[in-house]
Amino acid sequence: MKIAIIGLGNIGGSFALSIKANLPEAETYAVDIDAAAIQKAKEQNIIKDGSLDFKEVIPDADLIIFAVYPKLLVQLVSDYAPYLKEGCIITDVTGVKTSIIGDVEPLLPAHADFVFGHPMAGRENRGLEFSSKEVFEGANYLITPTSRNKEENIDYLKKFVKKLGFGTISVITPDFHDEVIGFTSQLAHVIAISLINSDDVARNTKKYTGDSYRDLTRITNINEKLWPELFMMNKDHLVKHIDNFQTQLDKLNHAIQSEDVETMEEMMLESTKRYKDLHNIE
Amino acid sequence: MKIAIIGLGNIGGSFALSIKANLPEAETYAVDIDAAAIQKAKEQNIIKDGSLDFKEVIPDADLIIFAVYPKLLVQLVSDYAPYLKEGCIITDVTGVKTSIIGDVEPLLPAHADFVFGHPMAGRENRGLEFSSKEVFEGANYLITPTSRNKEENIDYLKKFVKKLGFGTISVITPDFHDEVIGFTSQLAHVIAISLINSDDVARNTKKYTGDSYRDLTRITNINEKLWPELFMMNKDHLVKHIDNFQTQLDKLNHAIQSEDVETMEEMMLESTKRYKDLHNIE
Repeated sequence: MKIAIIGLGNIGGSFALSIKANLPEAETYAVDIDAAAIQKAKEQNIIKDGSLDFKEVIPDADLIIFAVYPKLLVQLVSDYAPYLKEGCIITDVTGVKTSIIGDVEPLLPAHADFVFGHPMAGRENRGLEFSSKEVFEGANYLITPTSRNKEENIDYLKKFVKKLGFGTISVITPDFHDEVIGFTSQLAHVIAISLINSDDVARNTKKYTGDSYRDLTRITNINEKLWPELFMMNKDHLVKHIDNFQTQLDKLNHAIQSEDVETMEEMMLESTKRYKDLHNIE
Repeated sequence: MKIAIIGLGNIGGSFALSIKANLPEAETYAVDIDAAAIQKAKEQNIIKDGSLDFKEVIPDADLIIFAVYPKLLVQLVSDYAPYLKEGCIITDVTGVKTSIIGDVEPLLPAHADFVFGHPMAGRENRGLEFSSKEVFEGANYLITPTSRNKEENIDYLKKFVKKLGFGTISVITPDFHDEVIGFTSQLAHVIAISLINSDDVARNTKKYTGDSYRDLTRITNINEKLWPELFMMNKDHLVKHIDNFQTQLDKLNHAIQSEDVETMEEMMLESTKRYKDLHNIE
């Protein structure tokens, strides 16, 4: 069982660490443009070997995990296509699905099966040095099969990520994935960026913050090369979610301005109910 | 040194726990309308005694800590005024200052000094059972003196909360307090409520959430009796902060819709810079 991880960033590195810990029998190889990252991963003994040249790794790989930016993913699949092993399974970690699937599937040879996936695991910081296997433990995993996928390969990926410690593994359509991720992840990032950027810098706010502000801005240390791509790939869903958020914000803002206690209480009782449902509190 | 804690909820209970741990020589008494809470605090040995009747506690108290809702605070100060000990120091935990100070100060006898304060410590859940002394450790504390306060009593309160483990203790004006808290705490709550209430319940979103959504909605388990009071007491500042947030949200929303990568990148670089400043990262 030979696994190739493409991209030794935070998520790629976390896969390497997690495979090492949970599937010690697997042989993990890596491809990266950064020789130092490969060297470091080898020294840490979390990959067997790695290369700057994909042709040294891809032809033998039974499972390929792409952990790269969406645009790069399309380019690499195009480059790798002639070298893919017969029967290999490919997966990715891209945060938006419909658009990337549309770009990638036409590039694939018939003998390779790309089962698209999305680990819902934190990645506040970039780079291998911030990788950890713990970040996967109990996290949600989303798999978005297409008509091209073999059932056995979808099952294989489910079992594989379960072994890595992921919690709930959901199999959903690419469009539903993009709809729900547009809400839980992308809208959250849009809000967090807007919040921290609306701070009055002259105020030296950090002396006066509590946990609330720190929680709501934790994801503002954001990769400015990746996220605009993701936002644009999912524009329609995301803009709809921003509108729905806006409706609630307007309602609460209006209730505050008109001192409408009843509406404020209703909205807070509703948010409390939803909080408890989210956290399975009776 | 006799301390009276008025209200054995989450914050009052945390004060009792913290005083017990950090100032073992102090004698702590409590007043509450809930006999069971007093009984429980006595059994836990975190108060020396307590009473449903404030007249049994207040006349001997050197330091009184009000940990009650704003409207109730005004009522209780009015009730307690004739019974306050000569030279006693009073403080509170109210999240908005200008309005409460205006209501409370005219009720005070000349021989009692009310130094208004605000512990910036979490209180996701209501009630004594969620109290902890750890929640105060390293947290910010805001003191908002008025012309009525004696310098020595402001110093006393500073030293007192420092001993309880609070981190940065800032002395600021009531209006600046309300301006900055309107941003770091109240705006954050407004956003979090609007976000979770904009969820499509039929989607069963919790199966697809990552840390981002959980972080941004952590404060939505909100006390619907307290927060409308706080919002209205600070309406002018809060509405201004919502407007500033709205400006940033509109800008990012427009950039997404028009696929304006440059503006998105700029906003993300700015948010990353602010994140690093907030967390003292180089």
